Amino acid sequence: MFVHIVNFWLKKGLSKEDIQKFEAGVSSLAEVDTVDVFSVGKPAKTDRPVIDRSYDYCLLTTFETEAGHDVYQTHPIHLKFIEDCASLWDKVLIYDSESI
Amino acid sequence: MFVHIVNFWLKKGLSKEDIQKFEAGVSSLAEVDTVDVFSVGKPAKTDRPVIDRSYDYCLLTTFETEAGHDVYQTHPIHLKFIEDCASLWDKVLIYDSESI
Repeated sequence: MFVHIVNFWLKKGLSKEDIQKFEAGVSSLAEVDTVDVFSVGKPAKTDRPVIDRSYDYCLLTTFETEAGHDVYQTHPIHLKFIEDCASLWDKVLIYDSESI
Repeated sequence: MFVHIVNFWLKKGLSKEDIQKFEAGVSSLAEVDTVDVFSVGKPAKTDRPVIDRSYDYCLLTTFETEAGHDVYQTHPIHLKFIEDCASLWDKVLIYDSESI
């Protein structure tokens, strides 16, 4: 399994409309057909020193193979999301892993 | 969906046996019955400035609800993993999120 995790820190002071635009855009990524597991989440209530709760959204996608992830990266839906929404975030941090 | 991501940075210079012990321990967590999606992965080959590849293992678990995650946290299999293997890592960093 190829696990692709993207944490987003949005710009401060976004309008409600901008946040809705981001949520709609990031949620559209579920439609890429090589995606297996999909979640867009906000920090949970759990709160311990080892938990980072500073991000705004955590995007989880999994793929059967790295090739499926590569299809996703260049998929028109993904490119449209970046084009429409990249101006809304300050920072992204990605963890890509392959199951042992 | 409750998404629980744990990135592990192991101590430097562990023996092959210690690494096998860690891998067996972390893999045993799949047996907790409230776990839905499960992956223990190592950094993928993807390499861009926004990708953090500095960790040694990424553990992904998902649960239907936060309550399922709470069962996992106090499950004997989880407690045994921590007891047996906590001495092997320098740092863990957790991202818990709930799907919007």
